[in-house]
Amino acid sequence: MAEVGLAEILAARQRIIPWLPPTPLRRYAALDTAVGNGISVWVKHENVQPTNSFKARNALSAATLLDAEARQRGLVAASRGNHGQGLAWAGQVVGAKVVVCVPVGNNPDKNAAMRGLGAEVIEEGLDYDAATLVAERFQKEGMTLVHSTNDNGVIAGAGTLSLEILLEQPSLDALVVAVGGGSQCVGAILVARVLRPDLKIYAVQAAGAAAIHDSWHAGHPIEHAIAATIADGLATRKTYSHTFPTLKSGLAGFVTVNEQQLGEAVRHFLVHTHHLAEPAGAAGLAGLFALRQDLAGKRVGIVLSGGNIALDTLRQIIR
Amino acid sequence: MAEVGLAEILAARQRIIPWLPPTPLRRYAALDTAVGNGISVWVKHENVQPTNSFKARNALSAATLLDAEARQRGLVAASRGNHGQGLAWAGQVVGAKVVVCVPVGNNPDKNAAMRGLGAEVIEEGLDYDAATLVAERFQKEGMTLVHSTNDNGVIAGAGTLSLEILLEQPSLDALVVAVGGGSQCVGAILVARVLRPDLKIYAVQAAGAAAIHDSWHAGHPIEHAIAATIADGLATRKTYSHTFPTLKSGLAGFVTVNEQQLGEAVRHFLVHTHHLAEPAGAAGLAGLFALRQDLAGKRVGIVLSGGNIALDTLRQIIR
Repeated sequence: MAEVGLAEILAARQRIIPWLPPTPLRRYAALDTAVGNGISVWVKHENVQPTNSFKARNALSAATLLDAEARQRGLVAASRGNHGQGLAWAGQVVGAKVVVCVPVGNNPDKNAAMRGLGAEVIEEGLDYDAATLVAERFQKEGMTLVHSTNDNGVIAGAGTLSLEILLEQPSLDALVVAVGGGSQCVGAILVARVLRPDLKIYAVQAAGAAAIHDSWHAGHPIEHAIAATIADGLATRKTYSHTFPTLKSGLAGFVTVNEQQLGEAVRHFLVHTHHLAEPAGAAGLAGLFALRQDLAGKRVGIVLSGGNIALDTLRQIIR
Repeated sequence: MAEVGLAEILAARQRIIPWLPPTPLRRYAALDTAVGNGISVWVKHENVQPTNSFKARNALSAATLLDAEARQRGLVAASRGNHGQGLAWAGQVVGAKVVVCVPVGNNPDKNAAMRGLGAEVIEEGLDYDAATLVAERFQKEGMTLVHSTNDNGVIAGAGTLSLEILLEQPSLDALVVAVGGGSQCVGAILVARVLRPDLKIYAVQAAGAAAIHDSWHAGHPIEHAIAATIADGLATRKTYSHTFPTLKSGLAGFVTVNEQQLGEAVRHFLVHTHHLAEPAGAAGLAGLFALRQDLAGKRVGIVLSGGNIALDTLRQIIR
């Protein structure tokens, strides 16, 4: 399909900015010290978005593209958490009914959060892929399916994040970006291609959910049977048609981080920035630690992309 | 002394807004459920300020009032944490040297944070009062002393917080505001007096540092020998000349909360909003829980006023 361009990202920015003013881009002396190697770190605080993750951008960008009739028919998505919360919130903004399809046994707190934002939550199917089939059933009945990755409105929304970073700090040397489906990383590539072609963009996945990482290194899509990581926002098993082609050509490197590195990054954010990160939201920082040699002396942007950590998970990490 | 008026608060807003855009005012269905009694809660997120507390407003408001010559001579304050960090940050914004006087044995992380923001940190004296005397020495040498409470620029800065709340949500019934020195609470009273004379403002102190609470109920200043609370941002032992007279006449009520209630409020913020609060920063929520009967069915604003919690403290609270 046609790639999203900067024009679509600028248009998305104009649509969402009344509800989503730019999030802070901050420096922390203590975080610089912890990272070391003379690296200067800028943290983009997407955890302060409504619903506590950058997914609010993605969903509102997609929702604001719809006409009144489509809003009337409603929006549907499959999600286990942040995308569903983002869409529920965006549905409230544009006045659209939202249905989120989650697998049976999905985190009850996340289900409650989506319901608290007015969404109908359908628990059906054994995993995310099964929930996707349920969402497609609602689509056939007339609702608009907003896929968490394979949707140009979603990708344009994610692009507004990197656009804000480069508008505020145009002289960065590199970005380190986590990949679940790849919207955030592709958004960064699309923005940098026009504004800062020399900006180096590095991608990060969890070692236990490394399908896109492995595909990137192989040069072609590889599908995995399972995705197992504490970073549930990154737990994907395959590549996506709207993001993989752009990822293939747009990255300076692609690394993985293990569960311990993800937990340490959550703790670093907590101690040095006093912000709460969920493991997926801290993956950019974990990746930066992994890339410390390559990025010595550089000015690097990372995204604290989400803060929806469960109390038990936090307890384990800071024990 | 002359009270600060709405004109001074509007002027402070104009001075600080280029660096401190309005912070989010958010609702959370899960927090409403936890509070119960049909109360609708709005949370003002001052934890997302630079330096993670509302003190950035206070300090920048005071610093931007100074002329070039005073900036050249520099700013000094006594502080154990948030005010010092706020002033260090504000000094960077206006290009002024900053000295923060802290007692011997002050939290090394907080000292490091102030130094990381370019301040000189002087460790001298056994407690906050002794550090104040050290700060006055620097004042005599020509620096401008920015007191954390007894300073009209500081109070006008704190007033911008409540101004933002009422501009965004003018139909609240009540605010519940924590009191350390009283700047935030007096700021709320001064704004509401003009914009919403019927708004009920309730104050909260920690039971272990209740000098202003006790003074308010007695109708005259009472000084305590010690202030002992996990909420170090509220650990004051006496009233302040710039805030007590206004507090005396402007409050609907004044309650105390114990250490356990403060810890529970930190945990409620963490679980229901996914934001990190320090105990002093959660005192407004703790006070709201204490006022549940009085505020049944009301629309209530609270401030998550700071997020600078130490890892050990958080560990104990969520154990």
